[in-house]
Amino acid sequence: MIAQDTVVALASPSGTGAIAVIRVSGNEAWDIVAPLFKSVRNKALKKQRGHTIHLGHIVDEKRILDQVLISLFKGPNSYTGEDVVEISCHGSPYIQQEIIQLLLRRGCRTADAGEFTLRAFLNGKLDLSQAEAVADLIASDNQASHQIAMQQMRGGFSNEIKKLRDELMNFASLIELELDFAEEDVEFADRSQFKALVNRIEHVLKRLIDSFASGNVIKNGIPVAIVGEPNVGKSTLLNALLNEERAIVSDIAGTTRDTIEDEITIGGIGFRFIDTAGIRDTKDVVETIGIQKTFEKMGQAQVVIYLVEAPSAFQASPPEGESLSGILIELQKIKNKYPQKPLLIVMNKVDQLASEETEQLKKQLSVISSKVEKSQTLLLSAKTGQGVEELQSQLLGLVNTGALRNNETIVTNTRHYDALLKALEEIQKVQFGLEEGLSGDLLAIDIRQALYHLGEITGEITSDDLLGNIFTNFCIGK
Amino acid sequence: MIAQDTVVALASPSGTGAIAVIRVSGNEAWDIVAPLFKSVRNKALKKQRGHTIHLGHIVDEKRILDQVLISLFKGPNSYTGEDVVEISCHGSPYIQQEIIQLLLRRGCRTADAGEFTLRAFLNGKLDLSQAEAVADLIASDNQASHQIAMQQMRGGFSNEIKKLRDELMNFASLIELELDFAEEDVEFADRSQFKALVNRIEHVLKRLIDSFASGNVIKNGIPVAIVGEPNVGKSTLLNALLNEERAIVSDIAGTTRDTIEDEITIGGIGFRFIDTAGIRDTKDVVETIGIQKTFEKMGQAQVVIYLVEAPSAFQASPPEGESLSGILIELQKIKNKYPQKPLLIVMNKVDQLASEETEQLKKQLSVISSKVEKSQTLLLSAKTGQGVEELQSQLLGLVNTGALRNNETIVTNTRHYDALLKALEEIQKVQFGLEEGLSGDLLAIDIRQALYHLGEITGEITSDDLLGNIFTNFCIGK
Repeated sequence: MIAQDTVVALASPSGTGAIAVIRVSGNEAWDIVAPLFKSVRNKALKKQRGHTIHLGHIVDEKRILDQVLISLFKGPNSYTGEDVVEISCHGSPYIQQEIIQLLLRRGCRTADAGEFTLRAFLNGKLDLSQAEAVADLIASDNQASHQIAMQQMRGGFSNEIKKLRDELMNFASLIELELDFAEEDVEFADRSQFKALVNRIEHVLKRLIDSFASGNVIKNGIPVAIVGEPNVGKSTLLNALLNEERAIVSDIAGTTRDTIEDEITIGGIGFRFIDTAGIRDTKDVVETIGIQKTFEKMGQAQVVIYLVEAPSAFQASPPEGESLSGILIELQKIKNKYPQKPLLIVMNKVDQLASEETEQLKKQLSVISSKVEKSQTLLLSAKTGQGVEELQSQLLGLVNTGALRNNETIVTNTRHYDALLKALEEIQKVQFGLEEGLSGDLLAIDIRQALYHLGEITGEITSDDLLGNIFTNFCIGK
Repeated sequence: MIAQDTVVALASPSGTGAIAVIRVSGNEAWDIVAPLFKSVRNKALKKQRGHTIHLGHIVDEKRILDQVLISLFKGPNSYTGEDVVEISCHGSPYIQQEIIQLLLRRGCRTADAGEFTLRAFLNGKLDLSQAEAVADLIASDNQASHQIAMQQMRGGFSNEIKKLRDELMNFASLIELELDFAEEDVEFADRSQFKALVNRIEHVLKRLIDSFASGNVIKNGIPVAIVGEPNVGKSTLLNALLNEERAIVSDIAGTTRDTIEDEITIGGIGFRFIDTAGIRDTKDVVETIGIQKTFEKMGQAQVVIYLVEAPSAFQASPPEGESLSGILIELQKIKNKYPQKPLLIVMNKVDQLASEETEQLKKQLSVISSKVEKSQTLLLSAKTGQGVEELQSQLLGLVNTGALRNNETIVTNTRHYDALLKALEEIQKVQFGLEEGLSGDLLAIDIRQALYHLGEITGEITSDDLLGNIFTNFCIGK
C-alpha cells in the first residue's frame, strides 16, 4: 500500500507572492534534489542533518532557475514520515513551474491530492481522523470551525476512541480465549467489569453522536432563515452584520475572504443566512408554492429571523390594540409548523421613526412576543447600525456553544458520525447479549463488529476505497 | 534610515493552500515569536542556532492557533540581514490572519511593500539593481525575462558598473589631490592610463545602453503588429500560437497563467500582439483615421505580420500576372513608411485550398516578397495548425536574441537606462576635456557627475524618494 516513489507538488497557494514552497517527499527526495542544488557554501546536501536550512541555487544543467532556501527533513522526522525537501523559491508562477518540471524530469511524480497527508497516515504520523482534520483546518474560516478542527487534529477525539477500542479488544481476546476452552466452562473475561466497560463505551458513543448535531452546523455555518418581503432591508442588514467583521480584517493584505453569499462570522461562529420570501396569506397558486418553499427553508434553519419594516408595519396598522395583528397571524403559522424553532422578530428601519413611535412599537412587539413561544423581539436600523450588535448577541445566545466553550470533543465529520452510529448499534447488541447471558461465541461476533466500526474512525480498519474518498477532497500539495 | 522595528507579512501568495509562510524580520523577531511558540520538544527557541527548523504550536494565551514549523535565521545570515523567523503554518486564510494579528498585537508592524528587500539593501545584502531584479524575477513569466532578471539579481550587471566606478573614483582622488598641489604642477594621475579607463567606461556604457533596446522589449514582450481585416482569422491564429504553449503547462496544477490578452510566449520569449485594422485605400474620413492609427501601432512594433485570407484573396484576384496586386500596393505603403521593419506576409485558411491552388499562391507570394524589402512569406491554416510552428520560428528568427543566447548583460530597467545615458554624457565630457587638455579642477567636476550617475544604479548614491519609488512597486511580503 505504501508508495515507494518520490512525489512533488506546490505546497503554498498558487499565484504570485514573495516566496513559494515546493515540497518533495519520498525515499529519493534528497537524492533527486541534491544534484540540482548548488549550495552557496559548497556544502554537500546529503551530508547535512535534518531540520536544517541551506541557501543556494537550483540549477538545470548550466541554467540557474532560482536562488532558493532548502529545508531538509530526515524521515521519520518529517510531515510524511519520509525524507522530505522543501524548496522555498521566489513566488513567480513561472519559476514554480520550471522547478517542478525539472523535478519531474529527474524522477519525481506529481503528488495526488492529499498524498502528503495520506503518506503521513500510512507511515503512522497521524491517524485517519487526524488526517481528515488537516483538511478541515485548512478549510476553517472562523474561530469555531478552526477550534474544532484543531482539537481533532491534535487527537483529542481519536485518542478516546482508540483507548476504548483497546480495552474492548482485550475483552474480545479473553472471550475468544474462553471459546477455545469451551468444554471446561471457564470465564476469563470478568462479566461485571465487561458490562461496566460496555456501558462506558455506550455513554461515550452517545455523547459523541449527540455532539454531531451542533458540530455539523458549527462546521458548516449555522443556518438562519430570514423571512421577509423584498425591500424590508435584508441585504442592508447582512451588510451591516458583515461590515463589523470586515473592519477587523481589512488592514491585513491578502486576507480578503472569498465572500460566500450571505455567510457571516459573528463572535467567531459562522452563520449561513437563507433568504426566503414572506408567508402572507394568498390564493395565488404561484405564491402558494413560494410559501411552501419558505416553510421548507425554515425547517432547515436553526433560527428564524422574521424581518419587517418598522414604518410601514406601523402605519398600516390600525391605531389601537389590533396593531401588528397581521404579523401575529403569520408568526403563529410559523409556530404551528415549528413550535420549537427560536424566532427573532426584528423590526428594521426604526431610524425613520420618532422616539414616541419607537416606544409604542416596542410595547406592541412585546405583547406579540408574549403570545408567541420561544420568540424575542428587536428594533434596529440596518442603515445606521443601531441595534445590529444586539442582534449579533441574540443570535449567538440562541446557538448552543457550551461544548465549544468547554473545549469538549465535537464530532463534525459525517463519516465519523456514521461509524459511531454503527458502533453504538453493535455495542447495544453486546449490552443486550450480556444481560440475556448470551454465549461467548455470539457476543464475540457483535464485539468484532463494534471493534470494526470504531477502527474505521481512526483508520486502524481501512480500505483503498475509503482512503481514496477521503484524500481526493484534499488540495494538491497537502 | 535603517528601521529598527520588527515587521511581519505574509510571504506566500494569498489564498488557500497546503501551507503558508509568514515572515518576521527585525531586532526583536526572535523575542516576539519565542513566547508564542511552544516547541514540541520543549526547546527554548532563543537558544537555537540559525538555519534550523522547529516543530511546535503557535499559542495565543491558551488558544492553539496552529501547528507550525519555525525557520530561524540569525542576522546577518538572513534575507534582510536582520534576525528573521519564518512561520510555516497551514494554508488557511483564517489561520494566516490570526497569526499575523497575534504578531501585530505583540509588537510587530505590518511590513510595507518591498520592505524586506529594502532592509536587505540597507543592510548591504543586495545592491539596488539586485534588489530591483528581485521584483523583476517574481514578475518574470517566460524564459527570457527570467534569465535577464536572474542575471541582474546575481549582480553580473552591477558588479561591472561597481568595478568601473571604483577605478574612476581612484583617478578622481588622484586628480583632486593634484588640485591641492596646484602650485607645484604635478600629475599624480597618469593621463594616458586615465584616457584608457575613460574609453573603456565609454565602451561599456554604450554596450549597456544599446542592450536596453532589446532588453526592454524582451522584458515587456516583443511587440508584433498584426495588420488584417476582421475575420481573416487573427484570433484563431493567436489561439493556435497560444495552444502550443498551453499544452506544456496544463498538467501542473496552479500554474494557470493570467491570460493577458494577446501575450504569448514562443520559445521562451514573450510576444505582445497588437491588433490593427487593415490599410485599404479609402476616402471615408473615419476609416482614414483608422489607417493613421494602424500606422502608429506598426511604428511601435518590432515586426509586422500582414495577415490575409487565402481563398478570398485568391478568388478576388484576376487570373494571370496581376493577382494579389492589391496586397502589393498595401505592402509598399507600409514599406514607404517603415523601410527597415521586418514584414511577415501570412496567408491564412490555406486548408480551404486545393493543392494546385496552394502551389500557385506560393509562387505569387514569392514574387510579391521579392518586390518588398525585408519581407518573408508564409502560408498557414490557424484552424488546422498547419504552418503555425513555422510562423513561430520565423518570429523567433526576427528577434535579436544573440545577447540572450550568449548570456550577455542586458539592461531592462528604465531607471538604469536613464542613469547610464547621463553617465555616458559626463564620461564623454571627461573624454573631451582630456583631449583638450582641460585643467584638473574642470575634469574633476565631470568625473564627480559620472560617479554620481553610476552610483545611482547600484544604490551607492541614493535618496529616500528614489527608494520609495522603487520599493512601492514590490509586493507586500517581499
